[in-house]
Amino acid sequence: MKLKYVSTLVVSCFIAFSAVANNAPNFDDEDLKVAAQLRDKALDSSLDYDIVESLTTEVGPRMAGTPGDAAAVKWGVAKLEELGFDKVWTEPVTFPTWKRGVESAEVLSPYPQPLVITALGFSVATPEGGLSAEIIEFEDLEALKAAPADAAKGKIVFIKNRMERARDGSGYGPAVAARGQGASEAAKKGAVGILIRSIGTDSHRMAHTGVMRYEEGITKIPAAALSAPDADLLENMIRRGKPVTVKMTIGAKNGEEYTSHNVIGEITGSEKPEEYVIIGAHLDSWDLGTGALDDGAGIGITVAAAKLILDLPERPKRSIRVIMFANEEQGLIGGKAYAEAHKDDIKNIITAAESDFGAGKIWRIDSKVKPEAIPAVKQMADVMAPLGISYGNNNAGGGPDLIPLRGKGISVFSLRQDGTDYFDYHHTPNDTLDKVDPESLKQNTAAYVIFAYLSAQMNGDFGTGFNQK
Amino acid sequence: MKLKYVSTLVVSCFIAFSAVANNAPNFDDEDLKVAAQLRDKALDSSLDYDIVESLTTEVGPRMAGTPGDAAAVKWGVAKLEELGFDKVWTEPVTFPTWKRGVESAEVLSPYPQPLVITALGFSVATPEGGLSAEIIEFEDLEALKAAPADAAKGKIVFIKNRMERARDGSGYGPAVAARGQGASEAAKKGAVGILIRSIGTDSHRMAHTGVMRYEEGITKIPAAALSAPDADLLENMIRRGKPVTVKMTIGAKNGEEYTSHNVIGEITGSEKPEEYVIIGAHLDSWDLGTGALDDGAGIGITVAAAKLILDLPERPKRSIRVIMFANEEQGLIGGKAYAEAHKDDIKNIITAAESDFGAGKIWRIDSKVKPEAIPAVKQMADVMAPLGISYGNNNAGGGPDLIPLRGKGISVFSLRQDGTDYFDYHHTPNDTLDKVDPESLKQNTAAYVIFAYLSAQMNGDFGTGFNQK
Ligand SMILES: [Zn+2]
Ligand SMILES: [Zn+2]
Repeated sequence: MKLKYVSTLVVSCFIAFSAVANNAPNFDDEDLKVAAQLRDKALDSSLDYDIVESLTTEVGPRMAGTPGDAAAVKWGVAKLEELGFDKVWTEPVTFPTWKRGVESAEVLSPYPQPLVITALGFSVATPEGGLSAEIIEFEDLEALKAAPADAAKGKIVFIKNRMERARDGSGYGPAVAARGQGASEAAKKGAVGILIRSIGTDSHRMAHTGVMRYEEGITKIPAAALSAPDADLLENMIRRGKPVTVKMTIGAKNGEEYTSHNVIGEITGSEKPEEYVIIGAHLDSWDLGTGALDDGAGIGITVAAAKLILDLPERPKRSIRVIMFANEEQGLIGGKAYAEAHKDDIKNIITAAESDFGAGKIWRIDSKVKPEAIPAVKQMADVMAPLGISYGNNNAGGGPDLIPLRGKGISVFSLRQDGTDYFDYHHTPNDTLDKVDPESLKQNTAAYVIFAYLSAQMNGDFGTGFNQK
Repeated sequence: MKLKYVSTLVVSCFIAFSAVANNAPNFDDEDLKVAAQLRDKALDSSLDYDIVESLTTEVGPRMAGTPGDAAAVKWGVAKLEELGFDKVWTEPVTFPTWKRGVESAEVLSPYPQPLVITALGFSVATPEGGLSAEIIEFEDLEALKAAPADAAKGKIVFIKNRMERARDGSGYGPAVAARGQGASEAAKKGAVGILIRSIGTDSHRMAHTGVMRYEEGITKIPAAALSAPDADLLENMIRRGKPVTVKMTIGAKNGEEYTSHNVIGEITGSEKPEEYVIIGAHLDSWDLGTGALDDGAGIGITVAAAKLILDLPERPKRSIRVIMFANEEQGLIGGKAYAEAHKDDIKNIITAAESDFGAGKIWRIDSKVKPEAIPAVKQMADVMAPLGISYGNNNAGGGPDLIPLRGKGISVFSLRQDGTDYFDYHHTPNDTLDKVDPESLKQNTAAYVIFAYLSAQMNGDFGTGFNQK
């Protein structure tokens, strides 16, 4: 049913009745009209890009626990205040830190050559002076797991699996297990170190970092990623049949516990200020690039979307919170902290969406709402249709920093972006401002402003109690 | 005139007369037929790619004067012997060396961030501990030259000119002057260091190296290139109007004099063995990548082309020399050494062509021959036509290592490749095997084998005495 084809008076009566009758939320015609106007204003504004430019230029890399992290928090507070949010505050987020040190590798024999690597987050260091050992190659993590107990004894494991390119980023999950679990699985087979082919879709001479985890009770061995061309090179050497010996040197170490902050800006609602919609992104990045795509773009999109609503003559009915989450990269720490700090107030979170997939255009909106709310979501999607966005399904995840809140039952939305190129740059030095297309960014902001505004204005609710893990 | 439409006997008589009459060289029909067969065999062989794979895997980076240089010479001799060349030898090439040391840079204020740089070849080092100074930005080299005498006093000059992308690489010349002359021009204005935007067409986080030269009598200041995203970043910081202070640390230094070798493989001619055709490429590379495009591709193409001729049942009339030139990158040293060593024998060089523009397809053949020979060149081009190659003009340069021989008067050919992407990778760590398209490489080999074979079989000659500078 498309309300816009029915006269306003009739519609209003019908909606009031309908909402009571079947618990279905809906939107006033006027709100749908304003949402469309906000959409068009978003397409006409470069505030989103300006915010990404500001963050990457004035702060740059902002790995959790570094001076860049502190600079980013300061930047976030100043930016939200400058833009005129009704309330701006921070909430503490405490976590263990990890420090990258020197990192280098080279083939010692039979064909001496340097290799480009980067340590994986939480990797231990090699012995001082480096670790030299013969390479043993595995197709993928499964092949390593299936190998006999001493298969890699005294060797450096090399896992060569390649990530598949896909619009929805679906190649990441299957490939990234090698990054997360490879070290402990290799140690179980007697390995002294591990090198993985970078989890990425590019073929540039830059290695992709990202977190790994050591399994309890298993020897901790140093872990690094090779750039794709270096992984190719190693494969080509190994194919020749002679033993290949590599030296890897990693100076990484765990640092002190550190307290960063989630940075929150609120547009305070005019009718139900205690109820709020969350839009957000993570403020931290990896240390190698300036985090323009991951996740400067998400910061730019969500802050710019909120600013458009701030600039309306009246405040929306409910509040809208823009949350810049601390330390997503090393374990969703900011998301967990927010969920814990607000656990007694979960019912007031109307819904939430996080932008954390770069700057590609949104092509689909997915929801996780009560079934009766799906028609309203489709109405929201109709306002997004001119942006090339259509409704997908009711299995949304909402974004990484929303996982802890999701576990507490909130409804979420996923505004799914085209991530075809995202993993070309993800977690590399190459994640820089030039990779952000200003026009695609505007399309994202237009979708987020529709989502945030309509959710804040909605009659009824999206439901709670989903408790997705 | 297309000889192939006339009966063989008539043609032969006509050619003999014609050659005497107007000094025009020509080809026997049978040779044109064999050339076409060789072309088709080239398209069916992956020897070219296998050679590039072998060089980049077994040797890798081979900057002049490094252990990789020595390994490459050894590899070259072994490869030519393994392929069965009639004669394989080396000729000494002596030059001063330059060693890359540590290299790093960072913005100190107002927005502390690391910058990705690489030292330019022959740059001096910064003082131990680095050089910190305010940045002064110039549009291009001309703007720097036009500045007042003390314009850059005590500062680090930043030249931000961007290289234009073009199929024929024509953006390189205008842009690269900043790399070659920037340091001395900056020093004349009182600068203590120089950073240029990389001379390249990509936007990846890798800086492009390449040689620079200090002008006699001018203070030598350290010189480095910023990656394109880092140059963008610096521009964005400078635009904010506050002084930008950068620290650059370069540990480069001049090394000992070193003797490398040109590696030469000969197919010895059956009728006029003293006369020869040169095809070649340079064996050295920069140190950052594995030199797959620059100039492993040229080595693969020219060696594979010669191998096809070696595999014919009979030797060609004239000899063919494949020359792997030493140290092209730091001043065409191998090319100069060859020209000097063979200066009394220049008349025996029938013609020459060097492949040194990556692995893109050839789209045009240019010559520098006597006017009477142009019809023969067009016949050669006709055999290349199925490869998508047409005749261009009679202003060929022949390739960098042929400049010294050109100065002594030899005729040359340029088989012009599509270099649209060449400067995305040129002189960066990203110059690796994955950038080489095997199919394009075959097309190149097919063109070179036509050129080499027909030049060796030709009746008459291309002329000499051009003495191009
Ligand atoms: Zn992210
Ligand atoms: Zn070259």
